[in-house]
Amino acid sequence: MKAALSSLLTSKSLSLHHSPSSLSRSIFHSKFLSTPPISLYPKHHANSTNFSRIHTAFAPIMAASYKPEQARAPPALPLPTPPLTKFKIGLCQISVTPDKPRNIAHARKAIEEAASKGAQLVLLPEIWNSPYSNDCFPVYAEDIDAGGDASPSTAMLSEVSRLLKITIVGGSIPERSGDRVYNTCCVFGTNGELKAKHRKVHLFDIDIPGKITFIESKTLTAGETPTIVDTDVGRIGIGICYDLRFQELAMIYAARGAHLLCYPGAFNMTTGPLHWELLQRARAADNQVC
Amino acid sequence: MKAALSSLLTSKSLSLHHSPSSLSRSIFHSKFLSTPPISLYPKHHANSTNFSRIHTAFAPIMAASYKPEQARAPPALPLPTPPLTKFKIGLCQISVTPDKPRNIAHARKAIEEAASKGAQLVLLPEIWNSPYSNDCFPVYAEDIDAGGDASPSTAMLSEVSRLLKITIVGGSIPERSGDRVYNTCCVFGTNGELKAKHRKVHLFDIDIPGKITFIESKTLTAGETPTIVDTDVGRIGIGICYDLRFQELAMIYAARGAHLLCYPGAFNMTTGPLHWELLQRARAADNQVC
Repeated sequence: MKAALSSLLTSKSLSLHHSPSSLSRSIFHSKFLSTPPISLYPKHHANSTNFSRIHTAFAPIMAASYKPEQARAPPALPLPTPPLTKFKIGLCQISVTPDKPRNIAHARKAIEEAASKGAQLVLLPEIWNSPYSNDCFPVYAEDIDAGGDASPSTAMLSEVSRLLKITIVGGSIPERSGDRVYNTCCVFGTNGELKAKHRKVHLFDIDIPGKITFIESKTLTAGETPTIVDTDVGRIGIGICYDLRFQELAMIYAARGAHLLCYPGAFNMTTGPLHWELLQRARAADNQVC
Repeated sequence: MKAALSSLLTSKSLSLHHSPSSLSRSIFHSKFLSTPPISLYPKHHANSTNFSRIHTAFAPIMAASYKPEQARAPPALPLPTPPLTKFKIGLCQISVTPDKPRNIAHARKAIEEAASKGAQLVLLPEIWNSPYSNDCFPVYAEDIDAGGDASPSTAMLSEVSRLLKITIVGGSIPERSGDRVYNTCCVFGTNGELKAKHRKVHLFDIDIPGKITFIESKTLTAGETPTIVDTDVGRIGIGICYDLRFQELAMIYAARGAHLLCYPGAFNMTTGPLHWELLQRARAADNQVC
């Protein structure tokens, strides 16, 4: 039912350049801070007999409560200089079986192949060590914080990133933490260090009768924070699959200086094709990140 | 150099339905308000010897200054019920000549044709009464507020919307206001009333050597406010061409209950094709509007 988004071992050159696509930038940043709250009323005009005011009833409420125009104000931080301006990314799309050790070995092989082709950043898909089902998530879940034998999947990622001196955005695995299970992405640095952990914020609960029904929140708990991490290939903002659907998350990352957004995915084939390319491209263009 | 975005008299059915594409919505609205400011620090873990803190240097500054996660919090207003759930839209793409009366007659004919095919909402492209050049904008500009003979273009739109009982999003024309010239979209109701006026907020200043150079701000002044208007076909948020590039504007409209976003355009053929479809589709999907 699930199909990973990425293509098998696709290595591509990433050219980081952060200049806006034109000379003009949004004037919302400065203008809206230096002027009174946005007015929804057209100004009164001498000859505009029909120029009526709109939204009189609730405008005062909105003025107090809604300030999307301040979403990124004051202007974003100056973008840190990326450590690399061009490097290869390996996107590993791997089939998943019920055999976890086999999945781990398979993922390791894919990462090694990507690195052997020159990738300095390698990504895995969402839930790569377990079948994608609510029955499996709790069974395949690992205690990432405990590490070692309690988390063979992340132990492999740590070892292989250190041995190959690459950065790994390790897709995601079911994570056990106390009595909760999260859908968690681990990022490893070139020395094997676990640099960040992102728990999927937006769980995908869908019910399209006759097409797809999947309630992730049956077994999973949602993460509560964005995750941004400095790596040897730049500052990366992390989302998992349906997190891509929410523009605010990408805006937060851009405002905080991300060079690159990574969204490991395992989209369903009913609604996925409507979103994965459209929204990835839009996040990149809107926020001027890769 | 400029090519209008819309296609000639394309009438299409607009099916307004506002349910989210899945059961799950962003948790940013509620979660981030009821929890402490977002932490960029991974929590400390017993076994995470390499789990270092990130961004220590500027995190306190960000916590005070950047609140994109509150962009649409508290949750958006309940969407007003649209007056129509299905209606035809006529998108008029018209060629422009140096002859203004001819342009006006041509636009009128296109609007009448769209209405005759059942369109209840008709749109014109950006700058439909004047060639697209800084030399022309001040010459072709009209005093919309003075109306009558001072603005033959909008007088025509008012008359035709009243006679045909249609809503018109009148593309845009150069507007003279005192010693300033704006790029302005007028919206007319079914009784001929000028219901709203949007002045292009994001002027398009571009310089790609050998490809395209156009500095709209040489002659035009930028508008300063979003424009949202209630019409017989629903609540419409208006942008003009490059306004499409800025996601905040569409988010403002969605938060304020827009059913429909209209962006009359006259995109250039160098950067336009990279943006017009991608960003229109993304604004619609991201904000669940038409």
